Amino acid sequence: MTLVGVEVELAPAYTVHIGPGALDLARASFANEKPRVLISDARVHGLHGRTLDPKADARLALLPEGEAAKDFEHLASTLEFLAQQGLDRRSCVWTLGGGAVGDLGGLAAALYMRGVAVVHCPTTLLAQVDASVGGKTAVNLGAGKNLAGAFHQPRAVYADTRVLATLEESEYRSGLGEVVKTALVAGGDLLGLIEREADRLAARDPGLLSEVVEACVRTKARIVAADPMEAGARKALNLGHTFAHAIEQSAGFGKVAHGVAVGVGIAIALRAAREMGCLDDRELEARVRRLLLRLNLLPDLASLRRSIGRALEPRELVAAMRHDKKSRGGELQLVLPRAAGKLELSVAVDGALIESWLA
Amino acid sequence: MTLVGVEVELAPAYTVHIGPGALDLARASFANEKPRVLISDARVHGLHGRTLDPKADARLALLPEGEAAKDFEHLASTLEFLAQQGLDRRSCVWTLGGGAVGDLGGLAAALYMRGVAVVHCPTTLLAQVDASVGGKTAVNLGAGKNLAGAFHQPRAVYADTRVLATLEESEYRSGLGEVVKTALVAGGDLLGLIEREADRLAARDPGLLSEVVEACVRTKARIVAADPMEAGARKALNLGHTFAHAIEQSAGFGKVAHGVAVGVGIAIALRAAREMGCLDDRELEARVRRLLLRLNLLPDLASLRRSIGRALEPRELVAAMRHDKKSRGGELQLVLPRAAGKLELSVAVDGALIESWLA
Repeated sequence: MTLVGVEVELAPAYTVHIGPGALDLARASFANEKPRVLISDARVHGLHGRTLDPKADARLALLPEGEAAKDFEHLASTLEFLAQQGLDRRSCVWTLGGGAVGDLGGLAAALYMRGVAVVHCPTTLLAQVDASVGGKTAVNLGAGKNLAGAFHQPRAVYADTRVLATLEESEYRSGLGEVVKTALVAGGDLLGLIEREADRLAARDPGLLSEVVEACVRTKARIVAADPMEAGARKALNLGHTFAHAIEQSAGFGKVAHGVAVGVGIAIALRAAREMGCLDDRELEARVRRLLLRLNLLPDLASLRRSIGRALEPRELVAAMRHDKKSRGGELQLVLPRAAGKLELSVAVDGALIESWLA
Repeated sequence: MTLVGVEVELAPAYTVHIGPGALDLARASFANEKPRVLISDARVHGLHGRTLDPKADARLALLPEGEAAKDFEHLASTLEFLAQQGLDRRSCVWTLGGGAVGDLGGLAAALYMRGVAVVHCPTTLLAQVDASVGGKTAVNLGAGKNLAGAFHQPRAVYADTRVLATLEESEYRSGLGEVVKTALVAGGDLLGLIEREADRLAARDPGLLSEVVEACVRTKARIVAADPMEAGARKALNLGHTFAHAIEQSAGFGKVAHGVAVGVGIAIALRAAREMGCLDDRELEARVRRLLLRLNLLPDLASLRRSIGRALEPRELVAAMRHDKKSRGGELQLVLPRAAGKLELSVAVDGALIESWLA
């Protein structure tokens, strides 16, 4: 077992353990917790619970699968569960699951007694490359995705790339959307690597997966350490996300996988960058389109509309964008790419103009 | 109008404006907010809303009165309200009301888009001397009071002592419980002042009230600035509170006013300190008992039981104490006084022993 440890240089610093068998390393640490409390969902727990908790005697809170977990009802019941288990301020909550489990479990840990420790064991590609690192936690409001939450850094993260073999194809593909985003944010060699190896990546080659997850986590760790509360540089990680959140909300939470929406959001951001005259790399739009297609993602809004059989009206999408956390006083602020690794973090764009691009 | 400004030296620092007419100063600042969003309750808003918002055109979220507001249902609806009003990350939420309004409104501000600014205008004595300064926000769980929350410092606090004249007697008296606690924590002259002037204080003498609120806020500001996240010294402010929270929970939230419960909690803490052999000042217990009686507070658990007609079983109280945020792995940690201004912050005490004191 060859694990890599990526440090996130915050105060206190924490390690993201990456590779096949990271859950075996996690098991030894989890065994020392008193009480041993695990937040997961039934499907993930059935597949991987025993790896972390071989005697199956941890105290268990099982959430519904996916975005359905991320509401106030489940937040409240999870907090009552933590109290019933007798957790005190020195206790540590563990999560095992995808982004939703980590978001909800992380927020519960942030709020319980005004903050206890949390360790994440992300089991989806999306959570491994993005959600479990950086301390963002949230639930959804009716008014928009992730509108209520907290910054709460984990004590450690265990990203076992072996579990990615068990993901459903649609879930795996969703993670690739965040991989493409991270490659565009990172610049350097990551985008080239993914382009060269797109077929092996789509086929989940284990060695390549560990390499890609590590590269993505290194990128995210570097950015988060420089700007933990998203005052500036961290905004880069929101590339494509204002569009993606609006798509997810308009379609109804859970109807479009987050990473698929991010892929389409990136395509729209590239179009927007071209229209706004800030896209320096003229080939990037076509390159990313080809890459999205090779990774079985959707390359534009038109394909997404056909795929889900929904109109996703431009006016409705722009209205949803106004609720996004990046918007300011009703004016829309977009993260737009100039080239791979080179982004404009806050471009003010008129809503009517955006509507025309979404037609 | 003679206002005093007490600085809370955190990063960023903020000012607590104290005195008759502080709401007039607040009005000028509130007028500049866009949007102008106010969280209050119907009774307080009816009494003082026009002072802050003379044209009554602020966007208004009215909570139920008292502890009933502090649950997840009202937290969720308040957050949806903030989204509907189009607040963005640079917006500021204002609260006008007692401790419950500040706790709920402060937590909503802490969570909305992972944190927006909040300004508190506390209208009860309890909120002016304690709740609105220091950044503690919370809702209650079924398992215990204030078990879910966040530290979220306000941008400013406006404590208008003129509004204290409108408090119902029971509500005013409740605030005096926190005043007695703060005097015991502060040491120095505050306890002597309150003893000398107990009758004028019970009669709400305006000049004395401003002086007492200022002294309490100075004490709290000093302690909070030294230990914002309650890692050590700030625990002093919890004197009497582990007992008080258990009483409030056992009686049913809202049945016993917080400050009344704190007064009884202080009496129990003094008894506990004597039993544990750490009460250096042998006269303090009798002095505080006399003071509580002169301020129309309850001087012991027996009086409280008679007053509310409830048994408040020792076993049940100790069980509730185990859920307190100060408890550790089931062992009970108490803040115990040695003398005025001199406290033991973390005395481990056996549950059975505590039960015997509560019989």
